[in-house]
Amino acid sequence: MSITFEDIVAAAARIEGHAHRTPVLTSRTANEELGAEIFFKAENMQRMGAFKFRGGFNALSRFNEAQRKAGVVAFSSGNHAQAIALSAKLLGIPATIIMPEDAPASKIAATRGYGGNVVTYDRYKEDREAIGRRLAEEKGMTLIPPYDHADVIAGQGTAAKELFEEVGELDYFFVCLGGGGLLSGSALATRALSPRCKLYGVEPEAGNDGQQSFRSGAIVHIDTPKTIADGAQTQHLGSLTFPIIKRDVDDILTVSDAELVDAMRFFASRMKIVVEPTGCLGFAAARKMKEALRGKRVGVLISGGNIDIERFAALLA
Amino acid sequence: MSITFEDIVAAAARIEGHAHRTPVLTSRTANEELGAEIFFKAENMQRMGAFKFRGGFNALSRFNEAQRKAGVVAFSSGNHAQAIALSAKLLGIPATIIMPEDAPASKIAATRGYGGNVVTYDRYKEDREAIGRRLAEEKGMTLIPPYDHADVIAGQGTAAKELFEEVGELDYFFVCLGGGGLLSGSALATRALSPRCKLYGVEPEAGNDGQQSFRSGAIVHIDTPKTIADGAQTQHLGSLTFPIIKRDVDDILTVSDAELVDAMRFFASRMKIVVEPTGCLGFAAARKMKEALRGKRVGVLISGGNIDIERFAALLA
Repeated sequence: MSITFEDIVAAAARIEGHAHRTPVLTSRTANEELGAEIFFKAENMQRMGAFKFRGGFNALSRFNEAQRKAGVVAFSSGNHAQAIALSAKLLGIPATIIMPEDAPASKIAATRGYGGNVVTYDRYKEDREAIGRRLAEEKGMTLIPPYDHADVIAGQGTAAKELFEEVGELDYFFVCLGGGGLLSGSALATRALSPRCKLYGVEPEAGNDGQQSFRSGAIVHIDTPKTIADGAQTQHLGSLTFPIIKRDVDDILTVSDAELVDAMRFFASRMKIVVEPTGCLGFAAARKMKEALRGKRVGVLISGGNIDIERFAALLA
Repeated sequence: MSITFEDIVAAAARIEGHAHRTPVLTSRTANEELGAEIFFKAENMQRMGAFKFRGGFNALSRFNEAQRKAGVVAFSSGNHAQAIALSAKLLGIPATIIMPEDAPASKIAATRGYGGNVVTYDRYKEDREAIGRRLAEEKGMTLIPPYDHADVIAGQGTAAKELFEEVGELDYFFVCLGGGGLLSGSALATRALSPRCKLYGVEPEAGNDGQQSFRSGAIVHIDTPKTIADGAQTQHLGSLTFPIIKRDVDDILTVSDAELVDAMRFFASRMKIVVEPTGCLGFAAARKMKEALRGKRVGVLISGGNIDIERFAALLA
């Protein structure tokens, strides 16, 4: 049951009218800096502030009657939690979100604000996956994982599909990499719509499990990395995402936290947009490949803009 | 020689391909908060980060050969300086910008970066208008003032023209007010394209000279007001802008600096955009009129996004 571009086409039809068709932004300053033509797909302007809404909504749209009634369960301290909570609310499905009890109050509040039933756990003593599985078994709820799920991958791929449809084929495309849902979906869309485009996944230096996996040919597990890119603090790629990445991606690059802050400052001061650290991965990597990009048409996926404004301020101060 | 909508149409043709046609942003959260349909014209995404580029470029485009050769002079510590410097660079006209010697280094650097010849003066001992007039007389340069100039007003009006063309007629429209270039240009566009729309100018509470003038019927002068809305620290409306405002605007409203910070936080955290304090005036006022706006179609002009990122961080912290 391999995932194909046709699944992305079907996902695009399902999310239409629910997800935003986010803008593609351009910046003369960025173009001048890189000597290239850059197209930024602004998923920070997606509903709930990140691309995750696409995959969440697509997955929940496919629930049958029994699944809708029993509800969905998800574990996440980040954007996936809000994506599932909001999608469930829109589709009238009860949602239980398992979050660490020390998660930022603003994230718990946002998830509750989207109508999610938040269950907290002690991340030092309890296993969130076990809690999720127990709820799924006891109450018949369907567990939607953050990236390793066919409908999630297909949904995430709709952002790249929109980008290529709007700007045409590209020479290079830079996509953030955590667990690989966005990158694998983007890879399927890229190979269908801009087959000769060089496609790069980008990770934080401290969490380069994807790069290690890509280069060794097998999924490498690491400890939770210390990086400001909290959306890319995954410990390993997925069994569904990795084969697609291995087949369809050209390479995995890394950038430092300092380079992420530089990119975040560029976005704020020159393009007037708020981008969370994870969302800066693609542009930070593109800046490091300046020589190769000269005269080229380059896509950059900005994954999201969800960051506590105090933290944003502190990082830029 | 009164200024009309035809001048805005002519200005729009002159700036086409040079100024950005900025996006009109929407936000479900803003719509839900106000129970209205809000359209944000995002001039923070204009070239050099503010609507001022429109008026500056329009004015310089109309220079004759002798004027082009002798150059332009402008005095400003803010967005007008950068607008004139960039427009002059694009049109191959030498530009001299008179800035206070204690202006933020970043603003002086930005103006120089756009190719402007920056002349600094001591704002406590010297009169910038006298310096500007002397340069204009001695060297034959043309002085372009920041707002009280027909071509500047016509250029600023193109933003509202684009908004109405994109979204159709509106019930309410909120526009920031400093010296009145943007508001008077917007008023001409509004009366031509959405004649029944209620149009409000919005000032900082501390600098309500426009409100006083509007209500008394004559231009009121005040001391430089203390407000974070540095683009609205003007001391009086202009002899060209006031008659238009008096005739075509429904009222002038004011908001506090705290309300501006609240709006700035909303833009950053919910819409993921960076807006300078002056650019927050319109939305801050709309939020205060919530009851009247229910069920209505509402335009909000976001004037700019130029703020030192450290200052932005400090205001949101």
